Amino acid sequence: MMSDPTTTPGESRTLRLAIIGFGLIGASLAASLKRVGHPVEIVAVVRSEADADEALTSGIADRAVVGAAAGVVGADVVLLAVPMLAMREILEAIAPALAANAIITDAGSVKGRFVEDVRAVFGEAPAEERLPFIVPGHPIAGREKSGMVSADAALFAGRRVLLTPLPETDEAAINTVAALWRATGAMVECLSPERHDRVLAATSHLPHVVAFALVDALKARQGADEIFRYAAGGFRDFTRIASSDPVMWRDICLTNGAAIVETLDELEASLSTLREAIRRGDGQTLEEIFQRAKAARDPYFE
Amino acid sequence: MMSDPTTTPGESRTLRLAIIGFGLIGASLAASLKRVGHPVEIVAVVRSEADADEALTSGIADRAVVGAAAGVVGADVVLLAVPMLAMREILEAIAPALAANAIITDAGSVKGRFVEDVRAVFGEAPAEERLPFIVPGHPIAGREKSGMVSADAALFAGRRVLLTPLPETDEAAINTVAALWRATGAMVECLSPERHDRVLAATSHLPHVVAFALVDALKARQGADEIFRYAAGGFRDFTRIASSDPVMWRDICLTNGAAIVETLDELEASLSTLREAIRRGDGQTLEEIFQRAKAARDPYFE
Repeated sequence: MMSDPTTTPGESRTLRLAIIGFGLIGASLAASLKRVGHPVEIVAVVRSEADADEALTSGIADRAVVGAAAGVVGADVVLLAVPMLAMREILEAIAPALAANAIITDAGSVKGRFVEDVRAVFGEAPAEERLPFIVPGHPIAGREKSGMVSADAALFAGRRVLLTPLPETDEAAINTVAALWRATGAMVECLSPERHDRVLAATSHLPHVVAFALVDALKARQGADEIFRYAAGGFRDFTRIASSDPVMWRDICLTNGAAIVETLDELEASLSTLREAIRRGDGQTLEEIFQRAKAARDPYFE
Repeated sequence: MMSDPTTTPGESRTLRLAIIGFGLIGASLAASLKRVGHPVEIVAVVRSEADADEALTSGIADRAVVGAAAGVVGADVVLLAVPMLAMREILEAIAPALAANAIITDAGSVKGRFVEDVRAVFGEAPAEERLPFIVPGHPIAGREKSGMVSADAALFAGRRVLLTPLPETDEAAINTVAALWRATGAMVECLSPERHDRVLAATSHLPHVVAFALVDALKARQGADEIFRYAAGGFRDFTRIASSDPVMWRDICLTNGAAIVETLDELEASLSTLREAIRRGDGQTLEEIFQRAKAARDPYFE
């Protein structure tokens, strides 16, 4: 951010943050910032008067505005927290309404696509006017529940937020966005969009696809009700992500498909080895793979 | 159980319960029964003096005995809580030492194999002497941590325990075993070993195989450390079961292989549909499957 002459040194100016898509992620960010007293004015940018009322009633938004273009007027930072396929249209809608130095960031799960969208909308003509203010980001936190009603001021505490700045992005813009996330208790790291998308395909996107696939396969069985009734904690945890928002996950599959299919191939190869070991009763191979997996996972999680 | 003439009606006699394999399941059952004051004398049947000391020090065993045959002497109920491939040898070892009416039950994850083991060891000759006292069982509760040190008196509260009695099993023996589990807060249900093994292959065994397979596949990647560091709650939950005991899961795969491969085929078919939808960018199919899976799962879990 540029320095503000009306502010004495050391005193932070109140930032106007417009959050487009005031759902789980957007509303949780607002709730977190309010809880820690971060100097920020939250504008919930929503799609209906009903959503605007809900945002104001919740007490975590200072203002609520219906419509993206109207919502970003006067904003210092704009956060897009919407499904991946909704990004480009919103960028096009807000482009004419943005203040000159307004920073644009997002919370989308696929960074390559957001960078493409940004370049498609803002990359032409005097690119230097807008690209320095673009800070693609992704909070690695979520929940299978969606919507404003699930907002949680502690959602990002101790979690990672990954930023994938453009080569053109200003350091100051990165710092402003990083400071917002750090205020929520998150740890901020930067990496390339390509690495982000490949890592997330493996740790998040593929597990979601597999969980959806397993639940859908079991549902098709006779006696599906019995299967779900007899399921215990392992199954509940394994399939929790199959209760996630279908539209959000459709969009992730459509915008990070190549990386997801690549990691699905790796899983299939591993499953094929296990299937053959099970078929021929090869306990040694089974135990070796299970030991190796346990040893790989244990150091990272409690 | 037969009525005990030394007991006044309504007063329950203290049952001597020998638990072979005093690990997570065995020690948690003991801890649960002690916590609710169930009239039971717990004999921890272990493999070493060190384990015997640990069991006694923990305060959840009344006695600790090294060796299966010695451990079951005088027991009213014997619970085998050991990996599937250890069952038969233990049944053979304890057979000569069992009291005439001692009930044998187990906590194994594969019921077809336990029934086979029981028939192999006790089915010959005067089968009516032993088979009426066999109550195969499976508490649908677990944890990725194993060992006595992980014992939890609340492990079975609100969980299901599935019993798969033989046609020859006495009602009274079923009731005695069911009463033990009910005392821990569990809900007891009976079903056939075949149904049990098919349902559990889908809800427990296959998810474990997939979680092990995914973690092992990612570990083989360059940059595996980054993958695990950037993983969030979804991945942690999805792969939690990949931290389970490798020997226990090797044995489950070796003793319920056919049912596991069958449900793996169902999952592969479902994954193949999703892969093709991702490849051709078919958002409608993706959204339909995700919606269907979410709708199938949501009613059963919070």
